Amino acid sequence: MFQFIENGSVTSVKGIKAAGIFSGIKRKRKDLALIFSDYPCTAAGTYTLNKVQAAPLLLTKATVAKNDFARAVLVNSGNANACTGEAGYNDALQMQKWCAEKLNIKQEEVLIASTGVIGQRLPMDTIKKGIDEIVPQLCVCGGLNAAEAIMTTDTKIKSYAVNIQLKNGTVTIGGIGKGSGMIMPNMATMLGFITTDAVIAKPLLHELLLKSVQKSFNKISVDGDTSTNDMVVLLANGASEISIEKDTEDYNVFLEALQAVCIELAKSIVSDGEGASKLVTVNVKNARTYEEANLVGKSISNSPLVKTAIYGADANWGRILSAAGNSGADFEPSKVSIHFNDLPVLLPDYKLALDEKKAAKILSQKEFTINVDLGAGSENCTWWTCDFTEEYIRINADYRT
Amino acid sequence: MFQFIENGSVTSVKGIKAAGIFSGIKRKRKDLALIFSDYPCTAAGTYTLNKVQAAPLLLTKATVAKNDFARAVLVNSGNANACTGEAGYNDALQMQKWCAEKLNIKQEEVLIASTGVIGQRLPMDTIKKGIDEIVPQLCVCGGLNAAEAIMTTDTKIKSYAVNIQLKNGTVTIGGIGKGSGMIMPNMATMLGFITTDAVIAKPLLHELLLKSVQKSFNKISVDGDTSTNDMVVLLANGASEISIEKDTEDYNVFLEALQAVCIELAKSIVSDGEGASKLVTVNVKNARTYEEANLVGKSISNSPLVKTAIYGADANWGRILSAAGNSGADFEPSKVSIHFNDLPVLLPDYKLALDEKKAAKILSQKEFTINVDLGAGSENCTWWTCDFTEEYIRINADYRT
Repeated sequence: MFQFIENGSVTSVKGIKAAGIFSGIKRKRKDLALIFSDYPCTAAGTYTLNKVQAAPLLLTKATVAKNDFARAVLVNSGNANACTGEAGYNDALQMQKWCAEKLNIKQEEVLIASTGVIGQRLPMDTIKKGIDEIVPQLCVCGGLNAAEAIMTTDTKIKSYAVNIQLKNGTVTIGGIGKGSGMIMPNMATMLGFITTDAVIAKPLLHELLLKSVQKSFNKISVDGDTSTNDMVVLLANGASEISIEKDTEDYNVFLEALQAVCIELAKSIVSDGEGASKLVTVNVKNARTYEEANLVGKSISNSPLVKTAIYGADANWGRILSAAGNSGADFEPSKVSIHFNDLPVLLPDYKLALDEKKAAKILSQKEFTINVDLGAGSENCTWWTCDFTEEYIRINADYRT
Repeated sequence: MFQFIENGSVTSVKGIKAAGIFSGIKRKRKDLALIFSDYPCTAAGTYTLNKVQAAPLLLTKATVAKNDFARAVLVNSGNANACTGEAGYNDALQMQKWCAEKLNIKQEEVLIASTGVIGQRLPMDTIKKGIDEIVPQLCVCGGLNAAEAIMTTDTKIKSYAVNIQLKNGTVTIGGIGKGSGMIMPNMATMLGFITTDAVIAKPLLHELLLKSVQKSFNKISVDGDTSTNDMVVLLANGASEISIEKDTEDYNVFLEALQAVCIELAKSIVSDGEGASKLVTVNVKNARTYEEANLVGKSISNSPLVKTAIYGADANWGRILSAAGNSGADFEPSKVSIHFNDLPVLLPDYKLALDEKKAAKILSQKEFTINVDLGAGSENCTWWTCDFTEEYIRINADYRT
């Protein structure tokens, strides 16, 4: 029902242009991205739950909430404009204003996002010059440049798109994202921008985004921290003239495709986590409730002891069981079984089935799955995590300097 | 009202003997400890909240709950006897039985603890031989040997004692402990054994222990993980013939001294955290409630981003504020101020007061304090944490091998 598009991105979607440039906020690399729709878009957003929220996030949240349509998203990397108080909020407003003027649209049609160092004012002259420079570069092939320009400590571009066959024709979803430390439940230094040319009313768009984020961006962990700036924004510009309505088959197909894009973005964020060398899927099965399955997945995915054991290819299932035991979920430890891919590692009643050599071989792969069956009910949940390496420490011990 | 005793330990207390030997569970280092009281002791314990609880912990919890008096604590390191099912529980019972026979006391007077690798059966022949060997070595100067024998990845012995002047004479409290990864709220791969010669009824002893653990062992974080085996046990043998009664001045003095011993043990566990190079006190001030002060202290102390910044001597106060924002506590970010020792780093309304050079100098010290004033109320809480280094990763990437 849907296919991934090679080198797909936000600009795979009809009526969407984008650009990504080096403006001078960072020392060398691209640091300013712009996504622009030829048509007005309904917009939906999900935001960090951190009590400390950055100025651009507050502004975008208010802008999406108050207005019917959006046209553009302007994103800078290198500076988060967080913990900058009222002055910082005014800077974000100014960015929005300059961008709208240059694009010749209304100020409230521009959404703003920032990522980077906390607690420093934006270099506004540089931003102004950057806006003047980036607008003429908007292009239907600019999606990957935009994806590059929102990166901070990311080492790889994160960009996907799918074509979806619906009853009355084809629609497209495209998305770009950035990680890469501080990724955790409820979204963390993490940005995602998703576009579609389907016609979708605002409340339905919001519902679709929430359902997708829940199964993707909210199920990943790099280091258990959450940031002040995280958001995922979904724009629907209707250029395909194909509508998605609630309680239809098309709705289900579209949701599945949107989730697929979000999951690929989320997985690419984890596998590019700071210092990460492995991408691990954590399947929690047969919990009493979905909430408890989620708690167990989160606890295993966030445990530094599990993550360092993965790094060392050490089949230390005891740490996995112990992390499950710390989750707050209710289960009987003696009923738990653990598999690495299909290899049994622990069977109920603490029957040990560990073939150390086979286990080490699986744990040495770049990607594998940890299956944890709690034997307590019938609810399942999937998380993704990465290993914890010396490189993570090095990156974060001196991020600012 | 109380003084620390040089090289103090559990055997600084009248009527307490101890020993620590190499029995062969580990490859080279001491791995079996025994604490013994000449007189029956009232006993109190606090235990891990992990759903997965090791056999020795379950046995000790039941033993303390059911019986009026205890006489001995037998501890092995190198093997946690956790996730070993019924067979493992029977092993713990057998340890208890052998130890009681050799000491010529009742089985239920022996408490058992284990720490080390999860999921492997104890080498029972080695344990049996070890018990036969250790009992004759019990000695009033054996406290430090016992402290050494309970170590796993610890690099330093953790042992303290105080003399306390009460109305009718002097009593003593002595304690030994071990860390050193997986230390977090609610106690984690962490053992503490504390003795006193005061006369204290069991319910009061329990109350004193809970109040002390709350302000010490439950306020430290190495990596946010909690283990299957953690416990703190307090034994009072009455050898001083001086009673502690509720609602007296002596009670307050004794509690203060007990807390001081627990805090020193807890701090020594953090500063010896796996790979740790710095000990950091986190003072949270002026929260709305004590619970919220505690949440903020915990969130800052557990944040890998804060802990790596400390390692890098990077005055990244944004990460501290962001961690506070993630805690779930209710406060207004713009009212927060942060000091490193006495140096202002952030003042209310995001007034930045950062002298980078002075800040870096403080952060380069082995010990310093982060003061976070939430400006939301009047409740305070103190936590202790350590930095997060490459060495933590190395230790934990291949702990078993």
